[in-house]
Amino acid sequence: MATEKCFAKGSPAPGPVPKGQLRLYSMRFCPFAQRTRLVLNAKGIKYDTINIDLKEKPEWFLEKNPLGLVPALETSAGEVIYESPITCEYLDEVYPEKKLLPSSPFGKAQQRMLLEHFSKVIPYFYKIPSARRKGEDVSKQEVELKEKFAKLNEHLEKKKTKFFEGDTITMIDYMMWPFFERIEVSELQHCLDHTPELKKWTERMLEDPTVKNTMFDMDTYKAFYKSVAEGKPNYDFGL
Amino acid sequence: MATEKCFAKGSPAPGPVPKGQLRLYSMRFCPFAQRTRLVLNAKGIKYDTINIDLKEKPEWFLEKNPLGLVPALETSAGEVIYESPITCEYLDEVYPEKKLLPSSPFGKAQQRMLLEHFSKVIPYFYKIPSARRKGEDVSKQEVELKEKFAKLNEHLEKKKTKFFEGDTITMIDYMMWPFFERIEVSELQHCLDHTPELKKWTERMLEDPTVKNTMFDMDTYKAFYKSVAEGKPNYDFGL
Repeated sequence: MATEKCFAKGSPAPGPVPKGQLRLYSMRFCPFAQRTRLVLNAKGIKYDTINIDLKEKPEWFLEKNPLGLVPALETSAGEVIYESPITCEYLDEVYPEKKLLPSSPFGKAQQRMLLEHFSKVIPYFYKIPSARRKGEDVSKQEVELKEKFAKLNEHLEKKKTKFFEGDTITMIDYMMWPFFERIEVSELQHCLDHTPELKKWTERMLEDPTVKNTMFDMDTYKAFYKSVAEGKPNYDFGL
Repeated sequence: MATEKCFAKGSPAPGPVPKGQLRLYSMRFCPFAQRTRLVLNAKGIKYDTINIDLKEKPEWFLEKNPLGLVPALETSAGEVIYESPITCEYLDEVYPEKKLLPSSPFGKAQQRMLLEHFSKVIPYFYKIPSARRKGEDVSKQEVELKEKFAKLNEHLEKKKTKFFEGDTITMIDYMMWPFFERIEVSELQHCLDHTPELKKWTERMLEDPTVKNTMFDMDTYKAFYKSVAEGKPNYDFGL
């Protein structure tokens, strides 16, 4: 895992990516960047990491990715790839070892459709903790999140598989995982109480070596998210 | 082009898709469904169409696509694929004639990144006309749309190509086109005044046989969007 402190506004641009190597622009605690870290790790791809201060972004980073978001990949040819699902599909195509996406067009479409459904779950992981901090009533939003979890649970129940698209981990599991890794620090784990299959999936994911390699412990997350809540994200916490 | 009237709530479900055939669930004037129609047409794929009443959706359609949106494809194996970019990539993989996506992983990633940028343009095609109908001031939104058009113009300028990713039409052109086809009826064509390359692109697109085959004339669009503005979309206008 990268131990380099983040690059902020005004910082000099890193040198070009050495020939044949791959660079990841990341933020250590970002769940979207973690998707790419999971895929890189699962496939055993070597890469270096440049962490970005997402509050005070370096000017040179905005030139590489006009959206200013992590993750972004850069190759030694100067090709830049951003948006987490795009980086992950790119990696799966370029590095064919341990394929994470199925080879059939319909299999790929199924993964993308599930990801599309999941993209409507993600906002709850942000808006519920944020509303709670403001002292707002979040019961309605929690009901909605539970309904969405119930749909994911139903998917696992119907498929009768250990993971979302089979008995081994595939791309979609890694796309969803980072948000569940943070469920305890977001104080949303009770929303899993009535979705036993989904809960079992989180337990199985925790046993995966790649998940273990890319995750942070609860205390670190708590400290980081506290700094976020205080408006001063400590991107370098623990370094 | 499909001439079948739309299926509404309470309508009986259509029979299964005949062996080896393909079905498109569509709405004749939907720009997202047009993306899929463009790809089907460009690749010369045979398909039948079931038009859906998007205001009063048939129950059986919601079972096929829980998001309840068009486009959706159905194969004779009962596989259902929805979300326009997913349907289009699926078609490009299954029907290799006249490939619309590049074969290189980075080429595909570039198309997807551009589509991601464009996804932030789409809301303006809806919210400006809607705000205007309410008599609201849209000048700020128009400035934003013009800025986004300027970015697209810059892309074409830098690439010096006739279309977005080369001198021939590729997937991304068809993904963006339907929204530009409706630019006159949305009364937004003046937003193209300072983006000459983008304007030229729209003119080149109009010459494409596939575009010609899937488009409606201005009078039809005007009548349809008038019915939308009145809260009673006439999905079967002209049939």
